[in-house]
Parts: sequence; structure tokens; C-alpha cells
Amino acid sequence: MTVTPTREDKFSFGLWTVGYDGADPFGGPTRAPLDVVHAVEKLAEHGAYGLTFHDDDLFAFGSTDLERQKQIDRLTAALADTGLIVPMITTNLFSAPVFKDGGFTSNDRAVRRFALRKVLRNIDLAAELGAKTFVMWGGREGAEYDAAKDIRQALERYREAINLLGEYVTDKGYDIRFAIEPKPNEPRGDILLPTVGHALAFITTLERPELVGVNPEVGHEQMAGLNFASGIAQALYQGKLFHIDLNGQRGIKYDQDLVFGHGDLHNAFALVDLLEHGGVDGGQTYQGPRHFDYKPSRTEDESGVWDSAAANMRTYLLLKERTAAFRADPEVKEALEAAKVLELSQPTLADGEGYAELLADASAYEGFDTDRYFNGKGFGFVRLQQLATEHLLGAR
Amino acid sequence: MTVTPTREDKFSFGLWTVGYDGADPFGGPTRAPLDVVHAVEKLAEHGAYGLTFHDDDLFAFGSTDLERQKQIDRLTAALADTGLIVPMITTNLFSAPVFKDGGFTSNDRAVRRFALRKVLRNIDLAAELGAKTFVMWGGREGAEYDAAKDIRQALERYREAINLLGEYVTDKGYDIRFAIEPKPNEPRGDILLPTVGHALAFITTLERPELVGVNPEVGHEQMAGLNFASGIAQALYQGKLFHIDLNGQRGIKYDQDLVFGHGDLHNAFALVDLLEHGGVDGGQTYQGPRHFDYKPSRTEDESGVWDSAAANMRTYLLLKERTAAFRADPEVKEALEAAKVLELSQPTLADGEGYAELLADASAYEGFDTDRYFNGKGFGFVRLQQLATEHLLGAR
Amino acid sequence: MTVTPTREDKFSFGLWTVGYDGADPFGGPTRAPLDVVHAVEKLAEHGAYGLTFHDDDLFAFGSTDLERQKQIDRLTAALADTGLIVPMITTNLFSAPVFKDGGFTSNDRAVRRFALRKVLRNIDLAAELGAKTFVMWGGREGAEYDAAKDIRQALERYREAINLLGEYVTDKGYDIRFAIEPKPNEPRGDILLPTVGHALAFITTLERPELVGVNPEVGHEQMAGLNFASGIAQALYQGKLFHIDLNGQRGIKYDQDLVFGHGDLHNAFALVDLLEHGGVDGGQTYQGPRHFDYKPSRTEDESGVWDSAAANMRTYLLLKERTAAFRADPEVKEALEAAKVLELSQPTLADGEGYAELLADASAYEGFDTDRYFNGKGFGFVRLQQLATEHLLGAR
Amino acid sequence: MTVTPTREDKFSFGLWTVGYDGADPFGGPTRAPLDVVHAVEKLAEHGAYGLTFHDDDLFAFGSTDLERQKQIDRLTAALADTGLIVPMITTNLFSAPVFKDGGFTSNDRAVRRFALRKVLRNIDLAAELGAKTFVMWGGREGAEYDAAKDIRQALERYREAINLLGEYVTDKGYDIRFAIEPKPNEPRGDILLPTVGHALAFITTLERPELVGVNPEVGHEQMAGLNFASGIAQALYQGKLFHIDLNGQRGIKYDQDLVFGHGDLHNAFALVDLLEHGGVDGGQTYQGPRHFDYKPSRTEDESGVWDSAAANMRTYLLLKERTAAFRADPEVKEALEAAKVLELSQPTLADGEGYAELLADASAYEGFDTDRYFNGKGFGFVRLQQLATEHLLGAR
Repeated sequence: MTVTPTREDKFSFGLWTVGYDGADPFGGPTRAPLDVVHAVEKLAEHGAYGLTFHDDDLFAFGSTDLERQKQIDRLTAALADTGLIVPMITTNLFSAPVFKDGGFTSNDRAVRRFALRKVLRNIDLAAELGAKTFVMWGGREGAEYDAAKDIRQALERYREAINLLGEYVTDKGYDIRFAIEPKPNEPRGDILLPTVGHALAFITTLERPELVGVNPEVGHEQMAGLNFASGIAQALYQGKLFHIDLNGQRGIKYDQDLVFGHGDLHNAFALVDLLEHGGVDGGQTYQGPRHFDYKPSRTEDESGVWDSAAANMRTYLLLKERTAAFRADPEVKEALEAAKVLELSQPTLADGEGYAELLADASAYEGFDTDRYFNGKGFGFVRLQQLATEHLLGAR
Repeated sequence: MTVTPTREDKFSFGLWTVGYDGADPFGGPTRAPLDVVHAVEKLAEHGAYGLTFHDDDLFAFGSTDLERQKQIDRLTAALADTGLIVPMITTNLFSAPVFKDGGFTSNDRAVRRFALRKVLRNIDLAAELGAKTFVMWGGREGAEYDAAKDIRQALERYREAINLLGEYVTDKGYDIRFAIEPKPNEPRGDILLPTVGHALAFITTLERPELVGVNPEVGHEQMAGLNFASGIAQALYQGKLFHIDLNGQRGIKYDQDLVFGHGDLHNAFALVDLLEHGGVDGGQTYQGPRHFDYKPSRTEDESGVWDSAAANMRTYLLLKERTAAFRADPEVKEALEAAKVLELSQPTLADGEGYAELLADASAYEGFDTDRYFNGKGFGFVRLQQLATEHLLGAR
Repeated sequence: MTVTPTREDKFSFGLWTVGYDGADPFGGPTRAPLDVVHAVEKLAEHGAYGLTFHDDDLFAFGSTDLERQKQIDRLTAALADTGLIVPMITTNLFSAPVFKDGGFTSNDRAVRRFALRKVLRNIDLAAELGAKTFVMWGGREGAEYDAAKDIRQALERYREAINLLGEYVTDKGYDIRFAIEPKPNEPRGDILLPTVGHALAFITTLERPELVGVNPEVGHEQMAGLNFASGIAQALYQGKLFHIDLNGQRGIKYDQDLVFGHGDLHNAFALVDLLEHGGVDGGQTYQGPRHFDYKPSRTEDESGVWDSAAANMRTYLLLKERTAAFRADPEVKEALEAAKVLELSQPTLADGEGYAELLADASAYEGFDTDRYFNGKGFGFVRLQQLATEHLLGAR
Repeated sequence: MTVTPTREDKFSFGLWTVGYDGADPFGGPTRAPLDVVHAVEKLAEHGAYGLTFHDDDLFAFGSTDLERQKQIDRLTAALADTGLIVPMITTNLFSAPVFKDGGFTSNDRAVRRFALRKVLRNIDLAAELGAKTFVMWGGREGAEYDAAKDIRQALERYREAINLLGEYVTDKGYDIRFAIEPKPNEPRGDILLPTVGHALAFITTLERPELVGVNPEVGHEQMAGLNFASGIAQALYQGKLFHIDLNGQRGIKYDQDLVFGHGDLHNAFALVDLLEHGGVDGGQTYQGPRHFDYKPSRTEDESGVWDSAAANMRTYLLLKERTAAFRADPEVKEALEAAKVLELSQPTLADGEGYAELLADASAYEGFDTDRYFNGKGFGFVRLQQLATEHLLGAR
């Protein structure tokens, strides 16, 4: 196994990630804008296979058609030169003042209509560039104050919007699926569909649920203190992991967008194990892009930008290596067995058994000795975690 | 309006709430156990209409049939004497050592079978006592360590269990619905179905989704930093608010189970407004029990227990009063109008409009002046929030 | 009592607060810059008594001496016209790229020297304008990565800087004291002196500790889940509450800078009670400016800016009214007595008693009946909290 | 280097840690009590050098003198047999009902007197057993409600208590120092002296500050979202790291007390580097016990208890190895140099320089080119963090 990235690893980056200029709530840019052609060339050089972007990343909000097309052409040429692809595209409905109360769910109906038009236009571009996934991060869909937003009406408007988009791609015959990206807060006090769970639930209310999945981001779930790998497992369970945003976050605070692996390493280990090997018990893996949605720290100049881009991929591959060794370790297999991790795959009911048979089975209840679970029948979970820790540390 | 509770207010309390003995991770009990008959009498006296309980609250885990029946009979007699009802029942799958890795999703299959049997038995009791809702809090369904639990298999086992229970109540003809109670963590490091969203999503995978809703608890969502009223709004939107647990929590920390209103007052105001009046825009309200799942502080003796029980109801009624005044205030109506809160109810598309018509409407995009949103077209949300704050403070 | 602000209330605002242009990590400005003269006039009109600012708020970083002086003169004239004062001044060591790793504790020594010069220059301006407090928020003093910053050396450099500043104001005879403003994170992953406690501790290591206190901000402590009123109490206890920043925050998340009272209302009630009346037990109050360090929401236009400025003051005054009523209520007095809140002021040892006498007092230990604290001797804290809640709600 | 613990590593464990019975807020014990003699023998066998305990761990609250002495004698014999020592002792002022509102700061004066007596008695035992550190965790010193506790009076009573204890050990000639253990919350809503910073600040108000330091616990600071290694650095900077509690915590939630290294691994790496090697820049290290204050998970039986005890020590030693390699790596040295980490040790002022000379140095300000920090002069912090990450992963 190697930790040098290749295109088979399907690593992709947002143009806004390596292109982040360093501005934050308490300071302006520390780096000049990154030209898209340069970005594509450098990403290709570093082993990535894909570039993603919001419309406004490529051409400024309010660009003329000419300016817009010029930038698209420059991108297309760079893609052709390097062989990079655009696996995913998204639309910015959060930066311009017009979206100050959101796009699809702004209280202002005219804004909602404008937002839909902006997205429709970028879906055409997505189709043109061959993107298979259209991500929707509704970062401004939300409120700071409870009385300012009727959440049920907001959900209804969000549903209306996505239903329309689904109809559009269906009629157009575009091979595009949508992925909703949840986030609990920032820049709004509370954001609509704050977690993977809320988004998964909402999707089931849509007219074309099969077209819509989620694009979870490591840091977004961790900003709510949630276990990211567990959220991904539920998304996979419900067949909805359409895309993923990898990065690092150090606990519940502002959105840090650190390099993948520079946050919670234990959970990153579990995540890579899940994506690459189907988790502790095997099972469905993730086949899509490994997309990094991170920010090179504001303290860095351009060399730091590319060091950080490389760090994302290298850490992912190191963890892939570590998790493979974990799964191959006979002592781990034995500890998993002892901890009955595999027994959870076994149905609780016997084949053909229903409640009647279960009620008739005295060994299940009347004869079941619960006392043995006091001072005995330990699961050995700590030992298992220590084995994982030692594999993570490269110590086995 | 009055702030003295009556049975029409549908206030209910868990037996484990007023009966909490004060034990916590760093100290033993400070109060003697509360007899169920006494609890029923006192609750009736204070204006509650319902008592709820886990099996183990009423009769200790491992009770003989005789001990069990004796306690049931004592409860039934007290209900008859007082007129209190049991609107909801639940089963304890988390306290006994046998459940140390959970009930329905324990890695140990024998435990899962035992758990199902324990629940089936308590569902019979629920039916017998006329409870309409069966709550399932899977507090031990989870893990501290990622390798210890295959989340997808855990969801599969949880699904298997609920499907069986659904079949059971259907076949038996019980008029009972299930309500899943989410919680992000504590007592497990991470709990399965950590938020209202995750539970709503999971429910859609069940065989009888119509039988299953959620029982959100104020503090549980707030332990993940989520907006409780927004979560409730989504649950209502998806038709799944089957029951609710009211209490108080002061931010992201251990589960405090304070008195309702002793935590985030702004959100409590929004919640009561939503439950009682359908929120800022009107709409569906909640008709079920107002159930308090709180703990009288460990510093209190029995008089503090009843003071705290009364405080829950009184604060709820005060907030009901405050929110009614808020909604009736002409200045609030005007501010809601100015903030376009009502405009969000208006579909984004005109009647009969599809994407083709939207694309053809130049006023929506080409002719839309986004510049007016800079330095203008403010929403006045802060003013609206201040009006809410002043109503909350009883200052208008 | 009135809730219309007057100058006697000592309300002050940062120029950067009402002047906030709406830019955040995910969007650009939504409002035009606010001219300082206009700001002063509007604040005067709304009842404030003071304006505060960072150097860069008044004149852009890198201004020529001429540009700088012109702005100072415009401010001075506006102050003279309105009678507003400048009770506090501070320096921006966080926005310009040169400060990307901090000011006083940048790893780059040349930056540290530049930072000191920038501050010295602004201290002269503070003296010239009659400001009595010089606030230092070291928002960039910190790190994202543990290996990037030697914390002990950073503290040593911070100490070196403040010692120099202390010597400077002493030699110059300036009537100025310094106030350190703690914050746990944002914009850095971790900030030096993250809480009121860390700052208080650090101050004791300085050469002139008497010159240096703290300037705690509501939201900053609450971003660490800490009780703000308790932190203020400790600052008062240690004689170090030199200035205060009032605003609102809804839990552990990004720095929200909401209007005072639009966050945790219970704690705001306790805070105003402490500042105005010395807390539940009376005691030292706070005499300095009531300084609002908040941001008018990005959704607002200028009318929302002034509505929000007014809301801060009005809510403060409403809470002052509520807490006065709380303290005057005979039932509250009785409940405080019952809860032994006043007994805590009584020394544990009797007059003249030392450990020898205590050891000799059998009633204190050998004869002390601890059993009475089980099922008895409740403190009645929940009742007290309910009384506070009802006063907060204006319901008593 | 070896990862097998020896007594030279100075690993110690609380009796309450390996002896934890598994009880938590939602379930009773899952393990039988651990006899102290057995605990001492097993810890010795596993390579620990010390045992620590609260009085109530060894003999139940309310024991007769005879019962108490019997347990002390059994412990003493086991220590003699194994060579283990008792480097630290502490007193339980939080479990018994009498302490429901705290010990030293209970509103109830009689309780405060009782608490002092209990502590004095255990200090005698500490001296008798040769313990050099007396830890004080004031877990019940706090409140759920702001009106229930006058924080300034609580600090005054806490000060009174510690002053008395300081006088006692001084007069008795005991070679004992005190270490305050901060915690933000749990079991109280807010605890007095919530962070390392607050405790350090408080200590400076004492009569004998030289006798009192801090005993920070990994999880306690992380429950407030604070950087533990940074807090330890400040404690070392102020000469107050008298003892340390090592464990693991996964973010802001209830107190998890996981195995050391099973929480935030990046910060654990930085911590071990600081304790063992003085951090990135060298400097003072920590010479005291490496004390594990953790809880073997409730899912475990006794074999899991000892596996978890071993895991703590093994992970510590692995991290010691990793950090040594990090510091020895020439590329790390080069990256530290590039990031100017060492330049922070250099005083900002030149030798003999004061503000006058600094003001006279035009190169520091007038001639200083701040523009070079835009798009240049990056610090390379991300590269440094990646090097640390790769050493942590054992990949270099």
C-alpha cells in the first residue's frame, strides 16, 4: 500500500478550499485570489482527480454572461489539459446580500424565485461539465430568532424548491443527483436541517426522494457533538450517502475546516474504515469522491496551501493503511468475536420466529439468568478500543 | 387566563421524576423512595391529569408476578380514587446490568430477546391501563467506542424489534402508538438515533411507520446545541409529534432535567407558542399530554419535590399567557408583516407555474435588482425578537 | 423606575458594533460603513453616554497621519457637540495580515515590536480623549495546532508587553488602567487566556498587577459553557472587574454577539442583579460603563441597527427593574433565608476559633447528625429559582 | 524505549478508578466492589507505583473508628507487601447527603464545619501514609441556580477553609501540599472554580499560596472545550502544577473518564510532549505522579478493568515514544525554525531596551513593511501539524 495519492483514490477539492483567501470574522484576506487554472494544475500535480465549485467561486456574483463564459472556458481547458474532472457542483445562495435571509427559504418570495433561477442555471452548467452530484448547502436557510421564521413553512418552501429541481433534471434527462449538506449553525444562529438525521428525514417527504441524498461534512456534525462515523453509517443504511465532505474539527465551536485528520483522529479512523472497508462488520462501502472541504489556515501563504492539500490526502491514505492492518490483525478478530460485535448481525428472532414463538420461548425470559451480567459477561470493549488505538498509532 | 393547572391542561409526570431519589454519578440518594399511591395523590392535588412510568419504576426489576401485580393493583386503585389517567407507559431497558450494552441492539443476542420479552409484557400492561402511547428511550443503545458497535447492524436490529412490536399491537388490536425518544449521549458515549432528525429518518424505514413517532425531550436536543422548537416544528411537519418531554437544560453539558422554564427561556417561549398556537404563523398545534420529564434537584427534600412539580406547570401556563399576548399585540402583527414572516407561507411558484414559466419570467432573474438588498430591505428581525423578549418579560 | 436610557445609566457602545457591516465567514457586507459622526449623534439621541473604538475602526489600518488626524478631529467635534464621552479605547491587533499569528505573542518578533508600537500610539490617543480604560482583546494570540505555539513563551511575551505598557502609562502619568478581554476560541482554534479565570491568574504575574483587570464579555464565557455571572462575581471578588462587555449568546457555538438579553435570560437576570445590587447577598456593585459589544444582525438595514442598539439598553433597564422587585419581595427574602443563602456570609469558624478549637468541638463532628440530611433539610433552591423566574417573567 | 510500565514511570491510580462499580445516572452497579488489598496487588503487578484514594473509598462514610482502622491496616500491609506508595490522598465531600450543597461552601454552616473536620482527619491520614499531595475536588461546591449561591461569599468561605488547612499542615510540620481540582459542571450545574485558570487566580488570594497548586484533569477542561495542554502550560508557567489527572474525554458532554488516549489524541500527544520534554520549545517538565483518574467502562467485568488500567499506561508510554521521535526529527526541527516557534522565546525588546528606545526605532514601525505579510511570510503551521500527526500515527 502506498500513501501517495493517485486518481484512483478519487480525491477532490473545492475551488473555494485551496482558493480560500484567509478572510474570517475578525480579519481580512491574507492571500490573493487563486486562479482556477492554476488551482486545477496544482491539484492535478498533487494527485487529486477532481475539482468542485460554487458558481460564485468561478465567476463573481453578478458577472456578465461574457465574464461567466470566459471563466468556464478557462476551466474547461484546464480540465482537458490535466485530465481532472468535475464530479460535483454547487451553487452559492449565501454570500450575496440578497440572500441575507436565505435562498430557497428566504421570507422574501422574490428572493426565493431568484435563488431558484440561479440554481437552475448552475444545474445546466453541472450537466455541461459532467458533474454527477449537485450539492445544496443551505447555510443561510435559518434564523437567529424563533419568531423570525416559521420552520414548517420553511420546510414547505424547501420541499417546493427541491421538487422543482428534481422535475427539471428529470425532464432534461440530466444524470445528476442532489445531496443536501446539513449544518447546525453558523452563519445563522440555527440552520434548517441541522444534522444528517434531519436531512434524511426531510428527504422522505420529497416527490422524488430517490434523486436526493446527503453530503455530510465531518466538522458540521461534530459542531453538534455528534459522532460523524455513526451519522455516515445511518446515511449508508438508508442508501443516502451521495457525497461526503472530509475535514477536521476540534470539538463544539466555530466551523474550523481543518485538514482531515487534524481533528478527532479516533473518529477519522472509524470513518475511513467504514468508507473503505464497510466498518467493523464489513458491509457496504462508499464509492464516490473523497471530497475535501477544508480551509488552509489563514496563517499560511501559498506554499502552506499546497502542503495542506497534500496533508489531507496523505492522512486519509495513512488511515486507510492503518484500518486495513486493524482488520487483518488476528487479535482484533478475536477481540471482535469476544465483544460479540459480529453477533449483532444475527437477527434477534430465529428464522420464521414471530412474537408468538418468542413469547413461548421460556429460555428467552422466564429461564434467562440476568444475574450473570453482574460481575461477569463483560464485553471487552475497552480492550478493542485499545487495539484500535494502537493500530491508529502504528504501534502494532 | 389562569396559571392554576387543571386537568384540561393535560399535564402529566413520570413516576421516576417526582420519585427521583437524588442519586447521581457522584453521590447516593438524598430522598427516600416515593410510594406510587402517594405520588398519584399528590399529582392529582397539584392539578396534573396523568402519571407515566417505566415497569421498573412501579415494581423492581426481577419482581415476582405477585409483587408486580400488587403494585399494579395499588396504582389502579389510586387512579380510580383520583381520576388520574396513565396516558403513556415505557419500559426500562437501561438500568439492570443485563442491559449494559443496550436492549434491542445489545451485541448479545440473548439480551435482545430478553429485552423484547420485557417490552412485550409491558405493552400488555400499557393496554390494560389504557395508555395510548408507548415511549421507547434507547438510552443504552449505543457505544463509547466506534469499533464496538456496527451502527448499521444496530439500526437493523432496532428495526427488527420495532417491526415486531408493531405487528404485536396490530394483531392484538391495541390502541397504542410508539414514540421514540432521541438523545445524543449519556449514559453511552454516543447513542443510536441521537436527535429528532435521526429518529424521524429511521422511522421511515419501518414496516408500519404510521404506528411510530417521536417523543422529543427539551434537554436532549439542547445537549446537542440544537434548537428544540425547530426540531418540534419538523416533527409536526412530518406528522410525528406523538408525545413530548418538557424540562430545562442550561446548554451543552450533562443531562440536567431541570424544571421547564429553568433553562433556555426564549426557546421555551417559542415552544409553548408552537404547541399552543401553532407558532408565529399559526398552523397545526399539539393535542397530546404536556409531559414533564425532569428531576427535582438533589438538594431538595419532599417539599421541594412538590414545589418543583408545581413550578413546571405554572411556568408553562405563564408562557402560554405570554405567547397569547404576543400574538395578539398589533405591533407584533405589524413587525411580523414587515419581516415577511407570513410571506413564507406563500408558494414560491405562482399557481400553475413550473420551471419553464419561472425561467421565462425575466423579473425573477434578469430584471431582478439584487443591489437593493445591500443597505436596504432589512428584515427587522431584531425588532421582532425584542418584542418577543418584552412579552416574555411581561413588559408589554 | 423607567426603562428609557439616560446618561446616568452609563451605556456605551463600540463604534464597531453599530458600525458592523454584516460581513461574516460566509458572506460579504450587507450594510455601508457607518460614519463616526453619524454614529455619535445617533447614540447620543438614543441615550448612550459613551462611544468606544479600536484605532482601525476610526481610521483604516495604514492611514497616513493626516487621514488619521482628520478622523480624530471629526470624532472630537462630534463628542463636543453631543456631550458623549470615550470611556474606553482599544487597539486592533487582529485584522491586518501582519497579525495573522497574533500581536504581542506572534512567533515573529518583528510583528511583536510593531504591535507594541501600534498600541503605544493608541494609548496616547486614549489619554488625549480622556479614556480611563484600555481594553486588550488578544483574539489572534493563540494557535490552531499545539506544536505551533509554545504557550509558556507566549505568556512570557504577553507579560513583557503588558509590563512595558504599564511602565509607559505610569511614566506618562496617564490615568488609564488596562482590561484584558478573554475568549476561548475564534478566530484562533485556541486563544491564550481563554477565560476570566486564566486572565485573572495571569494578571498576578505582572509587574504592576494593580493597573490590570479584566473586561469579560457575556458571549465569550458562554462559548466555553461557563456561567457568566459567576465569572463576574469572581472578578469582583478579586477586585478586577475594570470593564464589561454585554451581549447575548445562545450556547456553545460561534461568537454570536446578539443583543443583550437575546441569549441566556436567566443568567442576564443574575448578572444585572449582581452589577446593580451586588447579587443575592448584596455586596460590591459595578460602577463602570455598561458597554455593549454586540453585532446588529446581518439581516438588518440601518433602522435595524438603531432598533438593536435601543433593545440592548431597554432590556438592561427592564432587568434592572425586575431584579429590584425580586430583591424587594418578602417571599423572596423568606426563601433566601430558608435556603440559608445568607448563612454563607457567616464565617465557618467562630470568632477567634482556630483548628484546635474546631477539633475540640464535638458538636461539629462526633456529635453531628448527618442522617438528618437524608430525606430532610432540603434547601428549597428550586422554589427560589421559581421565584426568580416569575420575577423575570414579570409575573409577580 | 519500552512501553512496559515500570515504577520509574510514576504511574498511579485512584482506588475509585479501578474500583468503580459501574453505577451511573441511569443504571446501578455492574461490578462488585474491589477490595483494596486486591487492587494494590493488581496495580503492582501491572507496573503502577502508586495508589490514591478518598477516605470514603477505603472505609464507608460513617465507619466506626475500628472499621476505619482495620481498612487502613489492610492497606498499609498491602503497600508494604508490594512496595506501592500513596503519593496523594483526597477527601470525599460530595457523596453523602450531608454534602448535597457542598462541603467548604455549603450554605449550611454546620455542614462546613463538619467538612473541615472530615478533611483535617484525612490530612492526618495522608501524613501518616506519607502522601505528599492532598487533592481537593470541590465537585459539590456550586449551584444549579444563580440565586441559590452568593459566589463571592462562597469564594470567601473556600478561602477560609484552605487557609485553615494550610495553617494546620504548617503547624503540624506535615510535608504536604494542596492541589485544587477544577471542573466546570457535573454534578452541580455550575461548579466553583470551573477551570484551571479560575483556580490559579483564586490561589493567589490565599494566606499561604505557596502551599496550594492545581490538579487539572484532562476531561474536566475539555468539558469546557478548553485546550488541556495549554492549560497545563499556564499552570507550569505559574509554578502550580502540583499533580495531574490523566484520562480521556470525547468533547463537551458528561464527564466520561475514558482511558487516557481514548479521547483527543492530538492533545494527548501535546500533553505528553509537554510533561516529558517541556513542549515544543523545551523548558520545565513535570516530575510528579502520572495519575490516572478514569473509569473502566460499565460494560466491562474485572478483566476489562485491568485491561483498561494497562491501556492507560501503555498509551502514555507510546505517546512518550512518539513525541521523542517528533522532537528528534530533523525535518521537524527545520519546520519549527521556519514557523519561528523558537523565535517566541526571544524577548520582544532588545537587551536594555525600554519603550523610549522602541519608540525611537523607526524600523519597528514607520519603516516596517506590513504588506509583506499579505500573500507571503506564511508560518507553515499546517506542515508542522502534519509532521506531528504523522509522528502520532507512527508513520515517520
